Order: sequence, then C-alpha cells, then structure tokens
Amino acid sequence: MTYQLHYWPGIQGRGEFVRLALEEAGADYVDVARGPADRGGGERALSRRLGELAPPPFAPPVLVAEGRAIAQTANILLFLGARHGLAPQDEAGRLWVNQLQLTLADLVDETHDTHHPIAAGLYYEDQKEEAVARASHFVRERLPKHLGYFERVLAGGESGAGLAGERLCYADLSLFQVARGLEYAFPKAMRALAPKLVRTIALAERVEARPRIAAYLVSPRRIPFNQQGVFRRYPELDAA
Amino acid sequence: MTYQLHYWPGIQGRGEFVRLALEEAGADYVDVARGPADRGGGERALSRRLGELAPPPFAPPVLVAEGRAIAQTANILLFLGARHGLAPQDEAGRLWVNQLQLTLADLVDETHDTHHPIAAGLYYEDQKEEAVARASHFVRERLPKHLGYFERVLAGGESGAGLAGERLCYADLSLFQVARGLEYAFPKAMRALAPKLVRTIALAERVEARPRIAAYLVSPRRIPFNQQGVFRRYPELDAA
Repeated sequence: MTYQLHYWPGIQGRGEFVRLALEEAGADYVDVARGPADRGGGERALSRRLGELAPPPFAPPVLVAEGRAIAQTANILLFLGARHGLAPQDEAGRLWVNQLQLTLADLVDETHDTHHPIAAGLYYEDQKEEAVARASHFVRERLPKHLGYFERVLAGGESGAGLAGERLCYADLSLFQVARGLEYAFPKAMRALAPKLVRTIALAERVEARPRIAAYLVSPRRIPFNQQGVFRRYPELDAA
Repeated sequence: MTYQLHYWPGIQGRGEFVRLALEEAGADYVDVARGPADRGGGERALSRRLGELAPPPFAPPVLVAEGRAIAQTANILLFLGARHGLAPQDEAGRLWVNQLQLTLADLVDETHDTHHPIAAGLYYEDQKEEAVARASHFVRERLPKHLGYFERVLAGGESGAGLAGERLCYADLSLFQVARGLEYAFPKAMRALAPKLVRTIALAERVEARPRIAAYLVSPRRIPFNQQGVFRRYPELDAA
C-alpha cells in the first residue's frame, strides 16, 4: 500500500514530522503536492484536493491511507506509530508518546507565533515590531522551559535511551526536528542553552545517524529550512 | 476507582473539556486543586503536585488514573473516550474524533492568543493594542473559518447527529464548550455568525440538555466563565 501525503510543497512545516516518521518506517509514500503538475503537484492542486478528501480535514498535513484521510499532525503520527512500530504497543506507552508529541506541537505553535504574533495571514514585515516583543519572551522564558522539560524527561530514562525508552518512537524523531529547527531559527539562543541540553542534543545526533534518516536528510526529498516554514531565521528575533 | 483531576482551581480553561467528559461519563473524580487546602487544594499545592507526578507532565490539566499521570487535554480525552464510550471503538472512528478534538484545540489556542498575543506571562493591559489587532483578524477570518468547518462536518452527517454520528462523542462536548465560550467572549461576532451556524448551535443545545451535563452546569462544580480563563470578554476585541 502506498500512502499519499498532502502538504505544502515548498516547506518542511508541520508535514515534516510526518515525513520523518514515513522515512524512518521505510514506508511507501507519495508527497503529492511535490510531484509533477499532471499528477496533482503544486499548491493550487493541493488546495483543491483538500476539499475532496473524506472525512474532511481542516488543514494540511493530511495522510491518505486506504482511501481514508487522516489529518492533524499528532493524529497522523498516532496512526503511523501504531502501524509501524514507532510507539509502544501498550496503552500507557501510546498515551505517553502522544502526550509528548502534543507538547512538542505546542512548542512548534509558539515558535510559529514568534514571527506571526498578530495574524498568519499578514506579512512578517507588517508585524515585525510585535514579533520582536513576542520573540523576546519566547527566547527568555518559553524556550528554556519547553526544552528543559524534554531534557528532564530524557534524564529520567536510561542513558542513551529516547523519550519513551530504548526503542525509538516518533516523538524522538519530532524532538530531533524541533531541535534542528530551533538551531536554524535561533542560533544564538540555542548556543546559549546548549550546555543545559546535553541529552537532547545527543538524541538529535542519534536520530540523524539512523540509516534511513541519514539517507533522507541528504536526498532531494528533504526540503531545506527556509523563510516560509515554521522555523525562520530573523536575526532580530534571536536576541540572547 | 476515583480519578484525580489536577487543574487551576479558578478557571474553566482547558480543564473544562476534561470535566465535561468526566461529568457526562458519570465518572467518580476529585477536582483536587478545588478541594480544601488540607487535601491539596489551591494553586500552590497544584504547582507542587505537578512536579511529583509520573510520568512528568509539562502543564495542567493532568488526570491521574490508577496512579498514572496523563496530560495534554486531547490525550486525556482520547483515554477517557475509549474507557467511557465517548468515542467510537474502531480505529477510524477514534482517529476521527481525536482529529476533531485537535482542531478544536487549535481554535482554543487562537482564541487565547487574541488576548495574549505577545506573552501569556504579561498582563492583558500590557499587550492590549496588539490584542486588538490580533482579535480583529481572528473575528474576521479565523473564527468564521474554524466554526464554518465544524458546521460543514455536521451538515455532512445525519440531521440531529453529532460530529461522529448519532452517538455522542467527546468532541461534541468540546464543541459545545467552545461555542458557549466564544458566545461569552465575542457576543457581537457570534450573533453575526449565528445564521451560518445553525447545526452547531443546535448541537450545543442538545449537549446542554443531556441530564448529566444539565445537572453539572447548575452545580457549584461548574466555574462560571470569567476574565482569567481562555474565553474572556473584552468589548474592544469583539469588533464586528
């Protein structure tokens, strides 16, 4: 079976958390909007396609599996995690990984709003002053609090293990992506925090070294970080 | 078994989605921080308790069931929904209700940020100008888009059914709460939208009339909407 992923073609965005899970699972998938126009590629085709899927999604990313559309990043990962061994099989373990993923999603939302504090539909330049104010609080308070939490979770486990134990889970993949994204967007702030994030940084390196992830990251399927995604580098927002 | 709910004692907030599910289920639970101080009541005891729970939560609400702490609102509801028949039993149905709940959570986050666009840790008065700008976009663009989505989902089902069919699910309870919260916070905007939200309003009324919910809403367990919660009434943010 081939999965169809429907997501904006020019950015990593929230779709990247799904891509990483699909890649680590070695799953067969088509990133539809990144394909040629005659096979539904492009943003316009994506917008049109979203209106045709069932049950109806509110927004991308959407994964179509066996004709059924599944939306909301954490929900797609809940599905893929169970199906591809990227989460524990018992209820407590599944809920724990889902909880971690939702906590990461909150951090991603807060990161997005550092550059769009007034409206996602306005240009950055039209809300730059407010972005500077929001990012200042984010860098000083929210970023250390969020990342400190995941570091604490890792410290509570075995040395060298991930967020849910020895076996890799999809929240480990997502924490890798968030760490790399934050390093891209806030290099100064992340350098200052690094001494307190030893376990998180080590986990990100272990994820990056996994054969399928390593192959993915150097492939054309990996879109580079850029100024249209969730993680954007605006030096004025990275005040230490 | 008695559940323990750990949440800020003075507000509905995100904890209210959990309270509604517990009430509809007729579950035995203690709202710990609302109890007497000698049984762990109060905000200070809550903050202390959160640091002692395992596995560690990032933030309230937290539900403790059989000694295990479960956090993140949508994750708690995923657990309660399966256990108390507030979600379909099949995988597709469970994922669909989880997807709806996560979409509602996004709307709740956006609603929160209308009054706190710069930082949750600052007073409203210190970010009022930015709040007016954010709320203006929210009321004109995001609110109709979000609520229009749920109305469309309801229109796709049987007349008189909820978001996941005839049988009530926890996302129906949450949509009721969101609708009432938005009516409290944005009365003018919601009156203007009402003609396009006929099915949503009817669903909210059906939820409100369910015996256990009706009893809960007039009980002292239901905290009134107020200016500390997610849904706050600031007339300057409710410009039509």
